[in-house]
Amino acid sequence: MAAADSPTTAAAQAAGAAPGAGAMNHQVRLAARPQGLAKRSDFEFTQEPIPTPAEGQFVVAVSHISLDPAMRGWMNAGASYIDPVEIGEVMRAGAVGRVTASQHPGFAAGDYVYGIFGAQEHALSDGRGVIKIDPAFAPLETYLGTLGMTGLTAYFGMLDVAKVQAGETVVVSGAAGAVGSVAGQIAKIKGARAVGIAGGPEKCSWIVDELGFDAAIDYKNEDVRAALRKHAPERVDVYFDNVGGEILDDVLTWLARGARIAICGAISQYNASGGMRGPSNYMALLVSRASMTGFVVFDYLDRYRDAGAELAGWLTEGRLVSREEVVDGGVEAFPETLLRLFSGENTGKLVLHVGAADA
Amino acid sequence: MAAADSPTTAAAQAAGAAPGAGAMNHQVRLAARPQGLAKRSDFEFTQEPIPTPAEGQFVVAVSHISLDPAMRGWMNAGASYIDPVEIGEVMRAGAVGRVTASQHPGFAAGDYVYGIFGAQEHALSDGRGVIKIDPAFAPLETYLGTLGMTGLTAYFGMLDVAKVQAGETVVVSGAAGAVGSVAGQIAKIKGARAVGIAGGPEKCSWIVDELGFDAAIDYKNEDVRAALRKHAPERVDVYFDNVGGEILDDVLTWLARGARIAICGAISQYNASGGMRGPSNYMALLVSRASMTGFVVFDYLDRYRDAGAELAGWLTEGRLVSREEVVDGGVEAFPETLLRLFSGENTGKLVLHVGAADA
Repeated sequence: MAAADSPTTAAAQAAGAAPGAGAMNHQVRLAARPQGLAKRSDFEFTQEPIPTPAEGQFVVAVSHISLDPAMRGWMNAGASYIDPVEIGEVMRAGAVGRVTASQHPGFAAGDYVYGIFGAQEHALSDGRGVIKIDPAFAPLETYLGTLGMTGLTAYFGMLDVAKVQAGETVVVSGAAGAVGSVAGQIAKIKGARAVGIAGGPEKCSWIVDELGFDAAIDYKNEDVRAALRKHAPERVDVYFDNVGGEILDDVLTWLARGARIAICGAISQYNASGGMRGPSNYMALLVSRASMTGFVVFDYLDRYRDAGAELAGWLTEGRLVSREEVVDGGVEAFPETLLRLFSGENTGKLVLHVGAADA
Repeated sequence: MAAADSPTTAAAQAAGAAPGAGAMNHQVRLAARPQGLAKRSDFEFTQEPIPTPAEGQFVVAVSHISLDPAMRGWMNAGASYIDPVEIGEVMRAGAVGRVTASQHPGFAAGDYVYGIFGAQEHALSDGRGVIKIDPAFAPLETYLGTLGMTGLTAYFGMLDVAKVQAGETVVVSGAAGAVGSVAGQIAKIKGARAVGIAGGPEKCSWIVDELGFDAAIDYKNEDVRAALRKHAPERVDVYFDNVGGEILDDVLTWLARGARIAICGAISQYNASGGMRGPSNYMALLVSRASMTGFVVFDYLDRYRDAGAELAGWLTEGRLVSREEVVDGGVEAFPETLLRLFSGENTGKLVLHVGAADA
């Protein structure tokens, strides 16, 4: 990321590195519930002393923060599959880092870990939901992508929810995104035909040439319905949906009998201020005896280990290509980095490098 | 039905009963694809000699014709779960009647039968899809309702698609309609709590007092979302949807974890000229890890016999109350009778008495 993209970052980092100020923990907190796209003013930037662990706790110096479309939903008030982030709270975020101090029997200084550490440089943890990771096996940021919740979301969505079978035709929207790119590759590994929908020729080339999708549909430059009929001549058995909106309606017009739609997200609608657009073609579910099922990766917690091992195996074998787009900028760059998800700028997993663990 | 509702009927029946004209078969054919509600001018009324069966055929004098919301969809052009009725064709309709002449080894004159005989007085059949029925067990019209496709649709939708379990909360829309009234009673038989949504106090009283639903919501006079929270305090495990539209969106706001929505129909939308309304709250499927599944009763053909026997058993035991609203009027009254479905006038199964089998 060019420095011009985050003008305040250099100053913040310089402050963090200055003597005395080195002990401060810089944080991003939710300041207001966004209307439409989240603006910088919807966040506030705070600092407080780096915490000291009590008995049963440890402190993590954060290396990389995950950027996820779901974050936009967490900023809204009201019950969802997870509590909203409250105004004034550190913004919720998955992150990886290094344990710097520990009074917890299960974690020692020097351990590398994944957890919901939030958009901050240093996090205090009691170990719940924290997983040890191995930086010798894969770069830290990969544990936020293919080897993290992103990969697990693709894995359980494609295998448990959509129940892909060899020989079927799978369509994935947001196919050049973090989850979609893994979902399509898993479909291929399982012997299905994978058609990805992505925005722009570069993303489309990437998913076909680098990831091995059978075909790509550039929704920004193609008629999606016509392209589906061309690239999925036997209709769509599985649709892994990350985007919602018009593309969901397009795919509904071309379902095979008994099709399964896995609802992973609806990024096209998260910032809609006029209310969500529902799929007006949903009665295709009846015509095609199809189902549409929502899922949340957290429900598969007791299978993370096994699924993660399988993903790691595919990565080692070269059957799974992982791409992370790492933005350098520190926590100060969080708001602008988040927006990249919604402007469709990123390819693969978008990660913010915080660097508190680099020392 | 008051004679004023179908002014041509008396004349038509008089003509049918007149000497010489008694050999004519009066028919309703599709004349035009309706825009919005089907008008009388979308149909044409024809007559032709009563057919004579060739080898392997038989003729049925039709007693009652089924009126179904799905008929509106059959009038539209384009592929659906069943071919459209073509312009000039006899309008497709399920019906019951008596075999009057047969050259088919499996059917004899005097047999009572159900089949897709169409909106006409006499039908020629080769026996495919025809089921023998017993007028001594139940009135003929019941074989179009609880003991017919209507009951089977409720049965497979509630048990196979929605997979209702004892102790769950089930919501049924169109609960005073043909399928909905049976669906809710099956939920009760299986030990679930049944909440019906219907229009008007009479329908609501009927489903609670006569059918044994636990509660009713009058969507014409109540706030459906508030009423759901009152009558389904533990949220909705199963939603059997016959109506679509705003009520579907209302129920989506109150799903239990792992809820199943069976999409049986969308009567509120069939006549929409501005395009279908999609469920804008569909992301509740993700929040609640819920599914929405469409189904078509025809897929369960090989289980009709067993399911029908179970429905008949419940009827005999008094656990299932069947109500048919029989309109007298002959085939001439078909268009106006069909419209009753969409104005919400009928309670239970709407049937048109044709009477060709009465002689």
